[in-house]
This record gives sequence, C-alpha cells and structure tokens, in this order.
Amino acid sequence: MVGKFITIEGCDGSGKTTQSQLLEKYLRVKQVPCLFTREPGGTEISEQIRKIILNKENENMNWRTEALLYAASRAQLVGEKIVPALHKGLHVVCDRYIDSTLAYQGYGRGLSLEELKRINYFAAGGLKPDVTFLLDIDPEETFQRKARQEKDRLEKEKIEFHQKVRYGYLELARLEPERFKIIKATQSIEEIHREIVAFLEEVLF
Amino acid sequence: MVGKFITIEGCDGSGKTTQSQLLEKYLRVKQVPCLFTREPGGTEISEQIRKIILNKENENMNWRTEALLYAASRAQLVGEKIVPALHKGLHVVCDRYIDSTLAYQGYGRGLSLEELKRINYFAAGGLKPDVTFLLDIDPEETFQRKARQEKDRLEKEKIEFHQKVRYGYLELARLEPERFKIIKATQSIEEIHREIVAFLEEVLF
Repeated sequence: MVGKFITIEGCDGSGKTTQSQLLEKYLRVKQVPCLFTREPGGTEISEQIRKIILNKENENMNWRTEALLYAASRAQLVGEKIVPALHKGLHVVCDRYIDSTLAYQGYGRGLSLEELKRINYFAAGGLKPDVTFLLDIDPEETFQRKARQEKDRLEKEKIEFHQKVRYGYLELARLEPERFKIIKATQSIEEIHREIVAFLEEVLF
Repeated sequence: MVGKFITIEGCDGSGKTTQSQLLEKYLRVKQVPCLFTREPGGTEISEQIRKIILNKENENMNWRTEALLYAASRAQLVGEKIVPALHKGLHVVCDRYIDSTLAYQGYGRGLSLEELKRINYFAAGGLKPDVTFLLDIDPEETFQRKARQEKDRLEKEKIEFHQKVRYGYLELARLEPERFKIIKATQSIEEIHREIVAFLEEVLF
C-alpha cells in the first residue's frame, strides 16, 4: 500500500460531510492524488444496500440485520474501491468507516463489540485507517442545529442514544490515541478545516 | 421453544422447493401448526436484500459482501419470523439456512468456515435447526434438468463450483449426523416426499 487511508468520524450533524468536501477541494488544488468516498455507499452495490438501511419504511429492522448490512456495504466499498486506490498510490478519505459501527451498533445499540470487530475485520479484510479524525460535539448541540431539517430513520433516534455513541467514539479514541485525532466540532467550519489540514500536512507530505 | 425448526438443504435444482411445497400441503392436511419460509427472503426487508443478491447486474459483487448479505437477510428472518413462531409452538420449515452459507460461501468460494460460522451465529442469535434434510444429487444431473431454463447469477457458476458445494454439504452432514438426514435426490418426487414425511412423523408426533 502506498496511499494513506484517512477516515472522518463523528455523531450525526457533527459536520463530517462539510469537512470532507472542504478537504477534497484543498487536496485537489494541491494536486494530491486522492479518492473521496462515504459510508454506507460509495459503490453501486453499496448504494443499493444504503437504500435498505436508510429506508424509513424498514422501521422494524433487526439491529443485527442493520449491523450486517453496514458490514456488507463496507466489504464492497473496500474491495471494489478503497484497496485498489491505495495500491495505485492514491490517498483515500472516507466519511465513516468501522468506528461508526462500533460507536453506533456497539456502544449505541449494545451489540457485542467483540462480535462487531470480528465481522468487520472479515468485511474489510483487516484494512485499518492510518488516521481517523473524530469530530466531537455534544449531541444536544447538533440536535438544535438540525431541528428544522427533515430527519431520516437513524436521526430520529433519541438524544440519549447519541450520547452513548459519542461516549463510544471517545472510548475508541482513548484506546487508540496514535490513530485518532479528536477535533472540537464546536469550532467554526474554517477552524476545523485548518486543524485537519495542519495535521494531514504532517502525515502526507 | 416449543416448535421444531426444520431446514431443507441441497444444491440448486435438487428439488428443495418442490419438497417444501409438498410437505406444506401434507402438514396442513394433518392440521399441524407450522410456518413455511425460504432464504434468502421471507420478510419484507429480507426480500429487499434478496433482490440485491440475485440481481444479475451485480456481477462484480465481492464474495464477502455476498456472505454478509445472506447473513443480514437471515438475521431479519430469524428475529422477525422464525423465533416468534417457534415460541408460539409452530413448527418452522425453512428452505435453506446457515448450512447453505457454509456450503456455498465456505466450501464453494473458499471463505473461512470459522469466520462464516461466527458471523452466522451472530446473525441467528445461535438458533440451530433440530432437523436438516439434505437433498443430495450430483450437480451434473441437475444441470441437465435445468438446461433449458433461464439461469440466475448464482446458477451460472460452473459445475466444479457445485461439486465443491455438494462435497461441503456432505462434510457438514458427516460432522453432525444426529441433525442431518441425507436423502437421495435422484429418487422420484413422491419417494423423496414419503421419506421426509416418514422421518418427520417420528420427530413431530
């Protein structure tokens, strides 16, 4: 592998997508060869799986089903896009990855972390990120930001659930401090972007 | 659990669906309370997953993705239908179950049996069949039977693959002789049906 694998994590509404787009622009201008993608989705098959996961009519989805669908979508994205790109020397930036499953389905839903790790090790063929940016923010704040927008099935979950997810992310970061870079998502969009870029310049150049 | 959980396994074209339908008629006439279902599918969410798995346009599906989609479909079917039915005292007959994944994705594709077992233990919450009928037939014969019908993505796989699957099934049966009942699928439809019924009458009544 020549390219670096970078993931952006955080609770819903923490600004991951905005930061991913800003980073993409920045690296394009710098002419750094890279691939930007997102989870669940990122390939044709993964997008089909994404639709099932996020379909509001699938309310009675079993939590195990949900965890396995995320893993299936991930397996396709890793095999079809991420690994080939890294081999070609591209850096890959992915909006959500395995840590999302551990935070949401593990710490949030209460499914076994051990089982989820094994399933996702299988799904991803053991591929781990080199760097993970965790956009950390109190869910109370993001709920206020999003109050006027339409919410999908997952965003309808209660705030307590998101508190557990946030706690899970912080735990994951505590256990792997060398991989995680925690960023205060209460800062302005520009401040967060500058912090991500400053850190990445050390890693990539 | 009061009801018995019965699965029907075998290579494509071994007559599982026909036998499942005959058995359903037989048990209805006998007024035995039971639920008949099939994999992948059997619930609304599982049928959505089934469509992705069997879609001919999804030819570049990763084998890990495929295995995880089968597990996801299974998790939903077990949680939503099979376990509640067994708790109500219904006998459940399922056309394919975990052994299909072990035979096709494990012995057939070469994915780790250990990993597949763990993933499916997670998916099914540890639910194992009480009885498994294995309709055993040489794939050469079934290919001749099916030659004139349109084949879906999986059926297009080469005969060698199906030979590996058949070998896998026979290995699984060898390892758990108390659960498996092997039936020669070269017999007539009526003979196979009588054999299944004779065996089930001992188990159910």
